Amino acid sequence: MRGARTPVSVYAVILAGGGGVRLWPASRRRRPKQFLAIAPGARSLFEATVERVRPLIPLERLLVVTTAGQAAAVRATLPALPAANLVVEPVARNTAPAIALAARTLERAGQAEAVMAVLPSDHVVTDEAAFRRTLEQAIAAAARHLVTVGIRPTRPETGYGYLELGSRSEGDAWEVRRFVEKPDLARAREYLAAGHYLWNSGMVFFRVGRILEETRRHLPEVVRAVDGRYEDAPAISLDYGVMEKTADIWAVRGEFGWSDVGSWLAVADVHPPDAAGQVRLGGPLVAVDAKANVVIGDKLVALVGVEGLVVIVTEDAVLVIPKERVQDVRAVVAQLEQRGMDTYL
Amino acid sequence: MRGARTPVSVYAVILAGGGGVRLWPASRRRRPKQFLAIAPGARSLFEATVERVRPLIPLERLLVVTTAGQAAAVRATLPALPAANLVVEPVARNTAPAIALAARTLERAGQAEAVMAVLPSDHVVTDEAAFRRTLEQAIAAAARHLVTVGIRPTRPETGYGYLELGSRSEGDAWEVRRFVEKPDLARAREYLAAGHYLWNSGMVFFRVGRILEETRRHLPEVVRAVDGRYEDAPAISLDYGVMEKTADIWAVRGEFGWSDVGSWLAVADVHPPDAAGQVRLGGPLVAVDAKANVVIGDKLVALVGVEGLVVIVTEDAVLVIPKERVQDVRAVVAQLEQRGMDTYL
Repeated sequence: MRGARTPVSVYAVILAGGGGVRLWPASRRRRPKQFLAIAPGARSLFEATVERVRPLIPLERLLVVTTAGQAAAVRATLPALPAANLVVEPVARNTAPAIALAARTLERAGQAEAVMAVLPSDHVVTDEAAFRRTLEQAIAAAARHLVTVGIRPTRPETGYGYLELGSRSEGDAWEVRRFVEKPDLARAREYLAAGHYLWNSGMVFFRVGRILEETRRHLPEVVRAVDGRYEDAPAISLDYGVMEKTADIWAVRGEFGWSDVGSWLAVADVHPPDAAGQVRLGGPLVAVDAKANVVIGDKLVALVGVEGLVVIVTEDAVLVIPKERVQDVRAVVAQLEQRGMDTYL
Repeated sequence: MRGARTPVSVYAVILAGGGGVRLWPASRRRRPKQFLAIAPGARSLFEATVERVRPLIPLERLLVVTTAGQAAAVRATLPALPAANLVVEPVARNTAPAIALAARTLERAGQAEAVMAVLPSDHVVTDEAAFRRTLEQAIAAAARHLVTVGIRPTRPETGYGYLELGSRSEGDAWEVRRFVEKPDLARAREYLAAGHYLWNSGMVFFRVGRILEETRRHLPEVVRAVDGRYEDAPAISLDYGVMEKTADIWAVRGEFGWSDVGSWLAVADVHPPDAAGQVRLGGPLVAVDAKANVVIGDKLVALVGVEGLVVIVTEDAVLVIPKERVQDVRAVVAQLEQRGMDTYL
């Protein structure tokens, strides 16, 4: 790709190779979550991610990392992307290999000093201006450190990992004391009250040379695989394999209406409910004594006398699941796999 | 139509003009319940009704009464039916006018002495041989009386009307003391225990001249409308308008796996449940901690952690309703009408 060969070059690296199953039946192997239009507005999450960063970073300095199976969907969505900026993983191997692949691509293009802003493509952001201000802070801090964005928690969320901040700050960035696994509710409440715990957004920022150096140190087999046979790379996340093992992690704090929309309930949370507390995306709803349901899909859905259900309707499948069970969509997908019902995967 | 002009001629009159809404979203104005394949086997209820009587009554002596809107569906299902045997109501006006129209059609064809076996086309019968034995008994009794078929109750059903039998019998027929409206549960239990209460099947048998005479006596405006402007006929049922007002009603008792499949629950009842007590008609089902649900439709349906729900999926609509609320499908249809959503009606 093109781009000025100066230390201040900034590249956006959009990770678009994920294949999550938690939004089944809408998300499928060939149409994963990032290609669904589940945020307010008609764009897919991937499109929205690209549009969100373009005012800061032009298309020539935007890389998309995706798998072979999803490359066509990326090209269809973003035909103006230069061909060299589409980085294709032969197989999906989680974020550490994907980011190393992007970093090596940039390094070979003479951009070892450039800053990479690595952004998941399957999240929702409602305040785009605030998002870009945070991005600029993170990019600035990434000249010297490994940087992440921490989201100020608004509820005792048990579905996210957290970052515990230390007391040192440098400009807009705070030292990260540790990464914290998804907590139980009691602990999530403590984190919310404490004030120095933030949700881990999964956005990371660093210089190209720096992340390659850190990855070579902590996951040498990943860099070897990137330079050889990608299939040999272990499927491991950058957080787990590199970031958590490194002392020099800093975070900037973000507040921009962020959600990882990691379940149907999270999808519902980014849309306003009607007077009966119901969220309806897509076609019409007829509700009789029904409340607090989530209904997504283009067909007419009629609910009578039910409460707290999630009903998802696609062209070929229907899912009915109570709100408190939405994580168990995984069990449905597991059963489809076990029964060889690949049409629906 | 053709047919021997003797007193023993028997005509089957299939009532196929109903437009019930209780099986929405499968039943629609242009595809009402009788044209749905909801009984075991691939045939529609209408087809099954015709096939059931043909071993007794040939097609030349089979009349189908239907509305203008449904005539095409009847012709498509039964192309061998002689054109004169399709009796078309300009508008739907319930059973008293529909039966009077069929009776006048037969009378004009010189069949005043013939016996009419009037059969709804939207019921299920599982034992066809037993059904035909009962039909023969009813036809025999119809030479002298107005005759109906009473079904021996197998549960305290509150969704059906009942016939209370008197003590007089004549051959296989018993005098009917009175017609009983749909009872509450306590009363339905009494009826079940008493033994001389039967479900009113809606099948009626009489001579052509006799039913015209009775209808002229009790509903003269109906016969006038049949001979003039059909639209002027009051929409009234034969039971309510004629049978209940006449002393000479007799019933033969039937036991042939009958159901009026008048709700989604009744549809489920005529199909065997799986090990989790679930009934599935159509496409595949993925169930995770789900039991006692009823799922109908061709698409894949996945249920997680739900119990006692009825889920109906068609090309353009989905209904989710608890079993105990199935009668409230009417409220959905009412809302569709009120909101002018005619596409779904």
